[in-house]
Amino acid sequence: MLEPEELSLNIPDTTKPRVVIIGGGFGGINLAKQLPNKDFQVVMFDRQNYHGFWPLLYQVASAGLEPDSIAEPLRKMFSSDKYPDFHFRLVKVTGINPEARTVHTVIGDVAYDYLVIATGTKPNYFGNDQIKKFAFPLKQIPEALNLRSQILQCFEQASMTKDPERRQELMNFVIVGGGPTGVELAGALAEMRAHVLPTDYPGLDFSQMNIILVEGMDRLLPPMSPEASEKTYKYLHELGVDIRLGTLVSSYDGVLAMLKNGEQIRTNTLIWAAGVSGALIDGLPETSVERGRILVNEYNQVLGYDNMFAIGDIAFMKLPDFPKGHPGVAQPAIQQGKLLGKNLPRLLRKEPLEPFKYKDKGSLAIIGRNRAVADLPGNLHFGGFLAWVVWLFVHVMALVGFRNKLVVLSNWAYRFFTYENGTRLIIRPFVRRGDRIGRKFIDKYQAD
Amino acid sequence: MLEPEELSLNIPDTTKPRVVIIGGGFGGINLAKQLPNKDFQVVMFDRQNYHGFWPLLYQVASAGLEPDSIAEPLRKMFSSDKYPDFHFRLVKVTGINPEARTVHTVIGDVAYDYLVIATGTKPNYFGNDQIKKFAFPLKQIPEALNLRSQILQCFEQASMTKDPERRQELMNFVIVGGGPTGVELAGALAEMRAHVLPTDYPGLDFSQMNIILVEGMDRLLPPMSPEASEKTYKYLHELGVDIRLGTLVSSYDGVLAMLKNGEQIRTNTLIWAAGVSGALIDGLPETSVERGRILVNEYNQVLGYDNMFAIGDIAFMKLPDFPKGHPGVAQPAIQQGKLLGKNLPRLLRKEPLEPFKYKDKGSLAIIGRNRAVADLPGNLHFGGFLAWVVWLFVHVMALVGFRNKLVVLSNWAYRFFTYENGTRLIIRPFVRRGDRIGRKFIDKYQAD
Repeated sequence: MLEPEELSLNIPDTTKPRVVIIGGGFGGINLAKQLPNKDFQVVMFDRQNYHGFWPLLYQVASAGLEPDSIAEPLRKMFSSDKYPDFHFRLVKVTGINPEARTVHTVIGDVAYDYLVIATGTKPNYFGNDQIKKFAFPLKQIPEALNLRSQILQCFEQASMTKDPERRQELMNFVIVGGGPTGVELAGALAEMRAHVLPTDYPGLDFSQMNIILVEGMDRLLPPMSPEASEKTYKYLHELGVDIRLGTLVSSYDGVLAMLKNGEQIRTNTLIWAAGVSGALIDGLPETSVERGRILVNEYNQVLGYDNMFAIGDIAFMKLPDFPKGHPGVAQPAIQQGKLLGKNLPRLLRKEPLEPFKYKDKGSLAIIGRNRAVADLPGNLHFGGFLAWVVWLFVHVMALVGFRNKLVVLSNWAYRFFTYENGTRLIIRPFVRRGDRIGRKFIDKYQAD
Repeated sequence: MLEPEELSLNIPDTTKPRVVIIGGGFGGINLAKQLPNKDFQVVMFDRQNYHGFWPLLYQVASAGLEPDSIAEPLRKMFSSDKYPDFHFRLVKVTGINPEARTVHTVIGDVAYDYLVIATGTKPNYFGNDQIKKFAFPLKQIPEALNLRSQILQCFEQASMTKDPERRQELMNFVIVGGGPTGVELAGALAEMRAHVLPTDYPGLDFSQMNIILVEGMDRLLPPMSPEASEKTYKYLHELGVDIRLGTLVSSYDGVLAMLKNGEQIRTNTLIWAAGVSGALIDGLPETSVERGRILVNEYNQVLGYDNMFAIGDIAFMKLPDFPKGHPGVAQPAIQQGKLLGKNLPRLLRKEPLEPFKYKDKGSLAIIGRNRAVADLPGNLHFGGFLAWVVWLFVHVMALVGFRNKLVVLSNWAYRFFTYENGTRLIIRPFVRRGDRIGRKFIDKYQAD
């Protein structure tokens, strides 16, 4: 492997205008799919070589799916037979210079004619470094695999201790954040407790396993309708999830979680699904950033620039209907990416641009087997089996790539008919952020 | 996570005789499946929580399959509804004391009535620590994932260097060992070069990618028939693999591989598929070990003991027909495990034991799409498409668990019709044994 000094971006020279896209998420790929390579050279930077279907990431953490079911390699998606002037680079962007029209990376700079920032979000620990150090985030595939290993190793260890207090710490799982990720993970853990874990770990009493979901607002799934929140609460309650509303986790030292309401919970596993902030980039003018996101006009142009755009979660398009911006889900990113794919050619031809109009396709969340909630356009709210079928259909159809659909569908069909999670493999050495106890465990117990 | 002092094995007390099985490979699981839990308490130790179908491991390395397609959790396989007195512990065995009838682990000892050593093999670097430090082994799932990341990152880096010498080092792949793993991996890499990589990496010239297979003997697949060796050579040659027979790699420093024949090859990736030795265990009497394996009689009893057994690759059953022991493949392990599952109840009832007779079911190796070689009983040797179909059928049928069959079959069907490898995801941080350049790469280029 080479040192940074030995590398260069190697972007081919071109006479076409160059579009640089930072980020291969929902916004970035939907834009790149639209852009005609005969008119533009397209350069995409990402720190992963794949596009992830993040709404299903919790299933990787809960041993339901393997990474390839929810991720598609970007180079495969934009292979040169279909996108002859598309250039992917697996590299970290360190900043931009809008005046010089340049993007900086760790191995050199590249000039752009059009720049699209589609960097999405990162976990937000609200300045609490202790929680950042000890909590398990759930934003990336390696994090989901780490969490899966952690959950399974907790039960392995719980099988091997006679100390009831230690065992209880291993069997308590605290999920911070009652948004879709927190709710869906809580439901998946409850299903595992009901159907899979007792026969896997016959030495353990699973009435001692506690799943505690903590949400700061007074209802679950705050972005959804009150009806959906109520049904979600009811379903999770039926599944035996302990729900704490209107309170926060104020500290966590790796064992003891302190809640704002005074409650103390001892747990080896605290999962952080509480908040995100925009993955900002160095070199943006301060005036274009508000609430950690980039202010854009209705064409997704960054305020003050006609050739710099932000799309998806990182963009803050303040409209009368959306004073706080669009919801942080896939649809605005997809729709903005597609629209920008049409607007860039118009900009090139000096034609009028089409303003963005968000088409709300509704919201869905799955709580467990046969249980989901749906808010559909036209004030339609429902739950239960029908919502579950809708959820399944929407997610399988939305998955990128033919193969993923097949794999995901056969996984789900199998789990539906057998109550089985198939992928309970502890594969990656467990590495806990901040301490090395997990690493030590591997070294002492399992290494050669 | 707990410290070793806080853990204990927690094996339930029992009045039944206790069988302790070390290792959940082909031998261990086939034994455990046979043993009636009403007569025996069964304890299994392994350092992984899954059974791996190792003949397909190279497909994980070559981005063809995900780990869950070739691995099955041991606790799922032996769930308590089907095996009520089976006890799995994810723990490292440190030794045995045959006189005290005790197994030592890092967290305590357990007494046994019957002990079965089914620990298999580990890579053998023939004492060359430098090669051990820099080569990529391919014996375990994390190693296969590391190798996959390494291969893909070589192309990512090759796309980003202007130095032709560095690029060549990144695009040379040396595979040491012309047994099944080396041959099958070489074939898979050649298929990737032909069908997948050129459209993924349009900036690279894949005529510069070299796959060099080094074998010390004078033919490939030495355990198979000369006919199979010849066909394998021909198929690999057609696929553009550079084959070096009758020579060895004598040193490798991470960049420069020196061959015994004087040849020097510069490569960033040297894959070690050259040799294995028995995974021996402390406490065995010296007289029971020969050629790194455990001497057993025809009932798999370790010489000198009637209650201690070794099965599979670790066992050395010296018979007139097999002066060097049985071949190091799955079948002897499977057959010995099954037979011991019948013999242990006989031993308990003081009935005569049945001696082991190896039933050779033949050998198969796959070289590429539509290309395989087969040696079947009755001196039947053939290759090509027919052998490929037989290979596919045998391997899919042999895979453990209904779900794996479905996933593997749909993967293969997809690849067969589309020439696509689906799982080209760089997921795990690349960690190279011995140096931290890979880690540094991740930190500098991709980390937050």
